[in-house]
Parts: sequence; structure tokens; C-alpha cells
Amino acid sequence: MSFPADLNDPDLRARAVRAARGEAPFDLLIEGGELLDMVTGRTRHADIGLIGPLIASVHAPDPSRDAAQRISAHGQTIVPGFIDSHMHVESSMITPADYAAAVVPRGVTTALWDPHELANVVGEAGLDYACAAAKGLPLRLLPLVPTCVPSAPGFEASGGDFTPDTVARWLGRSDTHGAAELMTMQPLLEGDPRVSGIVQAGLQSGKRVCGHARGLTGGDLAGFAAAGVETDHELTGAADLMAKLEAGFTIELRGSHPHLLPELAEALLELGELPQTVTLCTDDIFPDDLAAKGGLDGVIRLLISCGLPPLWAYRAATLNAASRIGRPDLGLIAPGRRADLVLLSDVEAVTARAVIADGRLVAERGELAEPPAAVPVPATLAQTMRLDPIAAEDFEISAHGPQARIATLSKPRFPVWGERRVEVANGRLVLPDDMIRMGIVNRHGAGTPMRTAFLENWGDWRGAFASSVSHDSHNLTVFGRNPEDMAAAANAVRAAGGGLAVAAKGRVLSCLPLPVAGLISEAPLPQMARDFAALRATLDGLLTWEPPYLVFKALFGASLVCNAGPRLSDLGLVEVFEGTVLESCVLEDGLG
Amino acid sequence: MSFPADLNDPDLRARAVRAARGEAPFDLLIEGGELLDMVTGRTRHADIGLIGPLIASVHAPDPSRDAAQRISAHGQTIVPGFIDSHMHVESSMITPADYAAAVVPRGVTTALWDPHELANVVGEAGLDYACAAAKGLPLRLLPLVPTCVPSAPGFEASGGDFTPDTVARWLGRSDTHGAAELMTMQPLLEGDPRVSGIVQAGLQSGKRVCGHARGLTGGDLAGFAAAGVETDHELTGAADLMAKLEAGFTIELRGSHPHLLPELAEALLELGELPQTVTLCTDDIFPDDLAAKGGLDGVIRLLISCGLPPLWAYRAATLNAASRIGRPDLGLIAPGRRADLVLLSDVEAVTARAVIADGRLVAERGELAEPPAAVPVPATLAQTMRLDPIAAEDFEISAHGPQARIATLSKPRFPVWGERRVEVANGRLVLPDDMIRMGIVNRHGAGTPMRTAFLENWGDWRGAFASSVSHDSHNLTVFGRNPEDMAAAANAVRAAGGGLAVAAKGRVLSCLPLPVAGLISEAPLPQMARDFAALRATLDGLLTWEPPYLVFKALFGASLVCNAGPRLSDLGLVEVFEGTVLESCVLEDGLG
Repeated sequence: MSFPADLNDPDLRARAVRAARGEAPFDLLIEGGELLDMVTGRTRHADIGLIGPLIASVHAPDPSRDAAQRISAHGQTIVPGFIDSHMHVESSMITPADYAAAVVPRGVTTALWDPHELANVVGEAGLDYACAAAKGLPLRLLPLVPTCVPSAPGFEASGGDFTPDTVARWLGRSDTHGAAELMTMQPLLEGDPRVSGIVQAGLQSGKRVCGHARGLTGGDLAGFAAAGVETDHELTGAADLMAKLEAGFTIELRGSHPHLLPELAEALLELGELPQTVTLCTDDIFPDDLAAKGGLDGVIRLLISCGLPPLWAYRAATLNAASRIGRPDLGLIAPGRRADLVLLSDVEAVTARAVIADGRLVAERGELAEPPAAVPVPATLAQTMRLDPIAAEDFEISAHGPQARIATLSKPRFPVWGERRVEVANGRLVLPDDMIRMGIVNRHGAGTPMRTAFLENWGDWRGAFASSVSHDSHNLTVFGRNPEDMAAAANAVRAAGGGLAVAAKGRVLSCLPLPVAGLISEAPLPQMARDFAALRATLDGLLTWEPPYLVFKALFGASLVCNAGPRLSDLGLVEVFEGTVLESCVLEDGLG
Repeated sequence: MSFPADLNDPDLRARAVRAARGEAPFDLLIEGGELLDMVTGRTRHADIGLIGPLIASVHAPDPSRDAAQRISAHGQTIVPGFIDSHMHVESSMITPADYAAAVVPRGVTTALWDPHELANVVGEAGLDYACAAAKGLPLRLLPLVPTCVPSAPGFEASGGDFTPDTVARWLGRSDTHGAAELMTMQPLLEGDPRVSGIVQAGLQSGKRVCGHARGLTGGDLAGFAAAGVETDHELTGAADLMAKLEAGFTIELRGSHPHLLPELAEALLELGELPQTVTLCTDDIFPDDLAAKGGLDGVIRLLISCGLPPLWAYRAATLNAASRIGRPDLGLIAPGRRADLVLLSDVEAVTARAVIADGRLVAERGELAEPPAAVPVPATLAQTMRLDPIAAEDFEISAHGPQARIATLSKPRFPVWGERRVEVANGRLVLPDDMIRMGIVNRHGAGTPMRTAFLENWGDWRGAFASSVSHDSHNLTVFGRNPEDMAAAANAVRAAGGGLAVAAKGRVLSCLPLPVAGLISEAPLPQMARDFAALRATLDGLLTWEPPYLVFKALFGASLVCNAGPRLSDLGLVEVFEGTVLESCVLEDGLG
């Protein structure tokens, strides 16, 4: 529960004491606002006097107090800066500086960043970039050390390989803030030495060990906690929320799955109080959603709209988060704490009129006071499509026939195994009319061949989509019916140095380059939001699938092999929980 | 928010995971109890499986689970072990081992000990002894580093001198857990380099900086927080509680001032929720009270009897305390946490039927499983009455007369200055009929003379009381009207190597030796409780003063010079907040 070094400067503290006692002017005085107190849950009129990055005094309104600078907060409600307890900058496809510019004016002053995607593409160079890019921003971006690089060793190949030693070394740095989201649930539960060693590195570091407890129940959930994992954001519903609260997890309620929030809010309301272990996170936000709905402010807004008392939503985003991440300087407006403040013109709508971070007015009326300087992107991150050009032929699956029995992937998001008997023509499986192809090929220089699977219950496709964003190894992943369309989209992404592309009738209709690690663009958010929305609309026009908002999540997550159920990775059809790896989907050939 | 090293053993964690998943037996299974969940606030039937010191699983009752040992908790409610967030073992006048034996069977499994009294008598040797004596007990006794040795430098002389360097050096040890109760409020607020340096040492250590914010309000209270002090237990009432909650202090509601608790409980009930910054502490407990009413369990019981919901009282004593002291392993019954559990046969009466600490059954039905081994007391602590014999003459105050105007101390507990015109006879002040004498002399080898003051509104005394327990410098302090009685009592204490004595009519009526630093006896608690109660009764018979339960607090605290108001110390009549030091109470001589 220690205070960061910058607040422990004796001169700073001495100046704050003098100002608190009225013996010296404040550096900045915020006058006339109404404070929403996260400890007592009450509101009161209070002036807030700052000295440097510190709050020196929170006192009853007193116009006679002296200050070098004054800000009027009349008619506004003041809350602590919001803390996003778990997120991936990469999901917004913009740089950390652009992310900060997007969320700070909305009141987000701290975010715990798991640069998991960057690390899976470029290994330690990704974490190097993350730590460098996190510095000097108006947003307190706190990098965690990715623990799942790759997220399913032996079942996929990524561009990095973080052993327990790698994780321990990075956790030893003062600019990392914990072991990030451990997704390798099954190996941990089964005592896999690599994954256990990574958790141990986290425990030994004295920093937090964050988790991802998707679908864990009963003895597996208890085992995950007993291993030392502290947090989860992978809730599936009210019963899962209660089970995880009871198992002692710090809950990171996330905005990226808004359909669950009404049910989760109702479960909390039934408890009659907000557990102090409930925090909020964004996890993943697409650029158009970020531009339209914001970052953690959007999660607060959603929860209030679901009926959660505003106090609870703000408390989860501030005091609860600060306590759980071990930062006593944050999350509370009180003397001796860090001056991260949001002046709200509308509490329920979460409308920030002004934002103060580290004692400085960093944003007003939705605009940053000064744009943050982005650090240059190292060359390593700009050359990550390390694979040969793709041919249509690569998406074909060989068989003798005349028929073959194959394993299929049935349903997006939460896939289950299926089986089909399909025709074989010219030594290749014939794709049934109701199915699509998915292809995935390593883009990290492994040189392994394209793996292709047939998917069912994946809608009606009239084109192809290719992406270098493909959780969690971010290999080049392609969906469609027609191999020519698929190759066109895939080659467009390859040529762009990474990105997303849509093709139909042999032609590329839309391509969004993401040249930084194949995940991020240096273009500003408004442009990214527009281009991403346009590409999404183009794809929506080529397929019929409900509900449409899930399309991108399904596509980017189709190779998320660490979760339960079968998936296609660059190594083949795999199921981590069963230890399955099938290089080809053909189970039985020569039938018919 | 790190886990202590003993819980980070990879084999331990691996065993816990296997047991949680039903792949191996638990070491100990607590079956059939009802769990009061500190996170959700709900109760549920749950079995608790332990592996070593860890909780491996908390699951729905399942008699088929395998375990090496089983404990039935049928009909009992299970809560986490209680955490006493601030206490002084010395106040109970027994050794740490005997203190542990007294409170562990009552459910107290952790206590943060400020060995302030020992340090003020024997300096670093006291802290050495505290750290050694705290080890190997069934009670997790966590020593803090005293910050006020002496508590009012320049206004009293104690047996130790802790500079910022001393404090920093001790905070660097892994067996100290924070900077203890900073009582030197005024010097800190005024920027005194020694006290500011001590707070800095605390902040730099990354450990907690605990406080004592007696009577601070407004800018002084804000300044105290702005300086970096985190906690307070010196509440004076509901308004003070609210002001300190609003100022962000961690509140340690204490049992040593029970008359305040109804008012404090009512204020919390009005809030409608228990702030997560509220914890509980005992601070000081006399031996007879400890034997009769217990330790932190007694505070929980008192708060429940004051109308606080039992959940709130237990949560303050467990989860809230664990969060605030930065110990995520404590305060919650969940997998991955430390197995400190209390099986209650009566929730409202706080009746512990069995206590488990670090996964071991340490007490049952009020008895320890095995008595803790006390460490030997070093010789330094056994020879602390370093002063010459006292003569009756020492309590006389010289003046010429025929009359003199003198400064008096008016009222015990919260003294104010008084003034009197008194007669002078034979070169000495004549004690008015309604007043008593107080004498105090350094017992740490300073060789300074006895200081004597006249007190008014201190009741009607027919004997004398002497004590080597005298906050905070623990100089030999004597009260009475008759100098012969006072000398008899003082010399009895001196001869006993420290302790308490009552004398009347020139004869010592009762003496309780406290040969360890003049504060503690190695006698067991039942004997100490009996002897202390007997001495107290003897004294009660010699004076008339209401309410009687305050007598001892008033006597032991009469020299607490760090607080507001005038006091008598071994240097004279002093008032820290005003910078006053009067060697003699005579303001004007030769009157009349």
C-alpha cells in the first residue's frame, strides 16, 4: 500500500501542509463544486486545494483562501479520476498517445494496460514499446507483464515466447505493475511447469497476478484462486459473478460485453451493497466504439443506465479500483492523495467538463489541454507480416474421397465440435453450401502451412475477410467461402504490413492498414473510427448473421485457443482442455 | 498488495490446486458450518478445505471430499480471524506470549503492535525484544516502528531517541510493518525537521504511516493527512469520525473508549453503509479488562451491542482491516487466502468455539492447543529504574512567600491551565485543601530533579499512587496529597524494578511489580488481572472521583504531553502546542 515516489518528496509534502493550514497559497483551487465522497457515499460542497500533484485540502467553501490559480466548479459534481482496471490499448487499434487523447477528456486518468497483443506479435520488443509509449502521457497508463505469450503453448505459435524467467525479469522493473491476465487456465490447473512458474514469478514479485477465469466453476475456479490468481473479468452471467465474488476474485466488470450488464447490475442490487472487490474495466474497445462511447466512462454510463446507483458505479471505478491495485494515492478526493479529479456537468450521463490529473488541468470540455507526444514506433514493430504471399490453393483441404468424414467447428464465439461427411472432388474437400472456410497461417516467420477448417452455423457469406488481428497469437486469419476472395483479402493485409481487408468477387473492397505490429495504426482516432466503421459496414453487406454487433468479436476471437472448446490455430484444429491437435480436419478418408 | 513469502511456495500452491480440484485430500476440512462472507455480506453453508496455511477450497457441503483431518462446524458460523489494527501489548502489562494466549482463543489472529512504550523506556532494545517476542506465536503479531521516541522531544525525556535514521533503519527490516502511530502532530504541522523526517522515512519505506490525530480539525487535520499520515484512532465523537472519514483517514475504531461507541455506531448507521476505511482496534487494554472482556473480540461485541449490524463489525475487523494494512492474504475466507478462521457458536456474543490460524487448529473452547513459548527477557529490559531513592522533600515546591501565584493543571484527561494564589510556609508552597500534588521524575538516568505541580478538580485523595507506567516517556509519576505517602509509593515502585504502588499513612498498601521495562510482568494473565484489580480497588478506596473507571486512564495519561493542553513532564509544566516549558509552577512570588 505504498505511495509512488513522486508523492514522497519532502518539499512537496511540506508545501501541502502549509497550504492546508492556510499559511501559503494553493497552486490550484477548485471552488464551488459538490464533492461525491467515495468513502462516505455522501455529497457535500467543498473547495479542493492542490499543491503540485497532491491534494492538500478539501474544505468547506471559503473564498478567502489564497491560490495561484482558481477553477470554478459551480454546478458541477467532483469525483476522482476513473481507473480502468484492465484493458488492451491494441484493441482500439491506435497508439497509446491517441488512446490517452481519447479517454482523458472523458475522465479516465489511470488504466492498467496488458500489452498482450503486442507481446504476442513481437515479444519483448512489444513490451519495451509499451513501457516507453506509456510514459509522459496525461493518462497514467500502467503496463502489466503479459503472462500468455503464447496463450496456449503447444497449441499455437505466436511472435513471442515468455518463459517464467522472462516474466520475472520484466516484473522486476519498476515500470511494470503486475502479472497480466493469465488465460492459460487449464495448464495452470494441471500443474504445467511453465504456467505455474509464470504465476510464481508474479507472486514472488510482490505485484498483482491478474486472471481470466472464463467458464471456470467449482473445483477449477477454486483451484485457479488457490494457485494465486486474483482477478477476473470474464463473467458469463449473474451466477458466475456471485461464484467469483464468493471465491474472492477482484471482479473487473467490463464494458465490452454490454448485453451482460443488466443481469450483473441486478445481481449486485440484490446484494444490497457494492462489494469492495468490484472494479470496472473496458478490456477491448473497437476504435469506432471508443470514439462514439468513450472508454471507462462508457462503462460507468452503461452501469448507471442498467440501474446501478451512480455512487456504486463511480466507487467501483475509483476507490475500489485503487484499493485493489494497491494504489492508496488514487481513487479518493482527500488531502494527501493524488490530485486526479473529474468535474462532471452531469453525473448520470458521466459528462466530464474538466479533468485534472497529477494536479494539472489536462482537459476541458472534451479537449486535451495539450496533445500528448507519441514515441516513435521502433522498426521491429513495423515489419511483422513475416510470411509468403497466399494462394487460393492454400485454403483447399486435400483428401482422396470419394467422400470424407471431417471434424468441423460449429458456432462462433463458443464453438463446439461438429462432424460432416463431405464430397471430395479433384483431391480436395468440397465445401458444403451451408458452411464457410476459415484459414490461418503463422505470420511470425514460422514458415508453417495454412491450416483450413470448415465452419458451420457461421452465417451466409458472399465475400471474404482477412485479419492480422486474431487473438491471441495474431496469425493471419481468413474467413470466406471462395478461396480466391480469401487469398485477395489475405494478400491485401500482408501488403499493408498488417490490418484488415474485405474482398468479394476477386476484388479487395476495403482495407484498413494496421502497420504497427499488424495491430495498430498511427492514424488519429477520428480517422481510424471512420475507416473501421466503413470496413465493418462493407463486411456487413457481404454476410447475413445475427446479431451483427457480434461479428467482429467472433472473427477476432475465432482462434482464441486458450478458452474452452475447439478452435483453429496455425497448428491445426486444437482443443486445449482436451489436449487435442489435429493438423487436418479429415478424420476418415476414402468413404462412399 | 503482495502475499507474504510463506504462501508463495510453489509446492504449497500446487498441492492446494490439486486438493481444490478433488485430485488430492485436504490437510484439514472444516465441515458443516455456515460461512459469513465478508465480500457479499451473505451467509451460506460451505465446507472449507485447507492445505497447509492456505485455504484451498470453499465449496458447497460435500461429505465425499477426502481429508487427512476433519473438524465439524455444524451449528457454527465461520468468519475470518480478527485483525486488531492498532494496539500496544505493553498496556496489558503482560508478555506478547501471554497476550497471544489471552486473545487467540477469542478469535484474534493478527494484531499490529506499536511497541511504543518499550521503545520509550529502553530505545532500540525494546524494539529488538518486540520483534523477537512477536515471532513463533499463534497470534500474528506484526510490530510497527515507533515514531515518537520521545513523543514530545524537548518537552520530556524518555529512555530512547528515535531519529529519522533510526526509524528508516528499522523500517528497512522485513519484520517491521510500518511506521507506528505518529503522535507528534504539532511539530509535524509546523514542519519540524525531525518529525517530518520520520514521516518521510515511513513514506520512503513503502510501508504504512500510522497516526494519532487527537483533536485535529480543519486545516490541521488536512495538513496531517497531506503530510502523509494514513490512520487515526483518537476519535472524540461522531463529528470527529465524519471529519476524519472525509479526510480519507483509515479509522481504527477503538474499544478503549467504550463510552464513545454508541455515538460512533449511530453515525455509521446514519451513513447507511460501513465505509471500507473503517477498521477496529483495542489500543490499550488493562490486564483485568483483557481477562474479563477479551481483546478485539470485545470491541466487536461492544459495537454489536451498540446496534452495529454484526456483518459490519466483523467486516471492519477482517476484510476492511486486511485491505487497509495491505495484506491480501488475510480477512477473507476464499481459496488462495490464508487459513485464519474463527468458528463462532454465537455471532452476536462473539463466542469463538475454535480458532484456526495458518491452517492449524490453535484454540478450542477458549483454550490454546499448546501454550506459546515466551522468549527470554534481555537484561537491558530488567533494569530500567535508573534513578535515586525519592524523599518526601522532593515533592515540595520552593517559594519565598508569604504568598505566590502559581500555574495549576485543572481537570484530568483533558487538562487546562488554572491559576491560584497559595500560601507559602517554611519556604514551600502550601497545598490547598481541594488540590493534590503530582510529581514526576526521569527514570532513564537523566539525573534531573523531581518536577511537582498542583492539580485541581482531581478528586479527594486519602493516599498516594506511584507508577512507572506513565505515557509516553514512562517516567516515575506520583500522585497524592501527602509527600510521605508519595515517597513511600514511589520508592516501592523503584524497588520493584518498576510497577504500580499505592500508599497511605506512610505505608505501602499494594504494589504490582512490572519488572520488564517497568511496564510488563512475566506473571500469567490471570494473576496479573487479579493483582491489578486488587491494586485498583485499594486505590479506589482511597479516593473519591467519578466516574471511577477513568481513574487509571487519567493517571497513566496525565503526562501525555504530545496532546493538546498543559501537562507535567520530567522537564516541568509544558504545553507542546504553545511551546511552553515551565520548570516551576511558580509564576509570581513574594505576594501578600
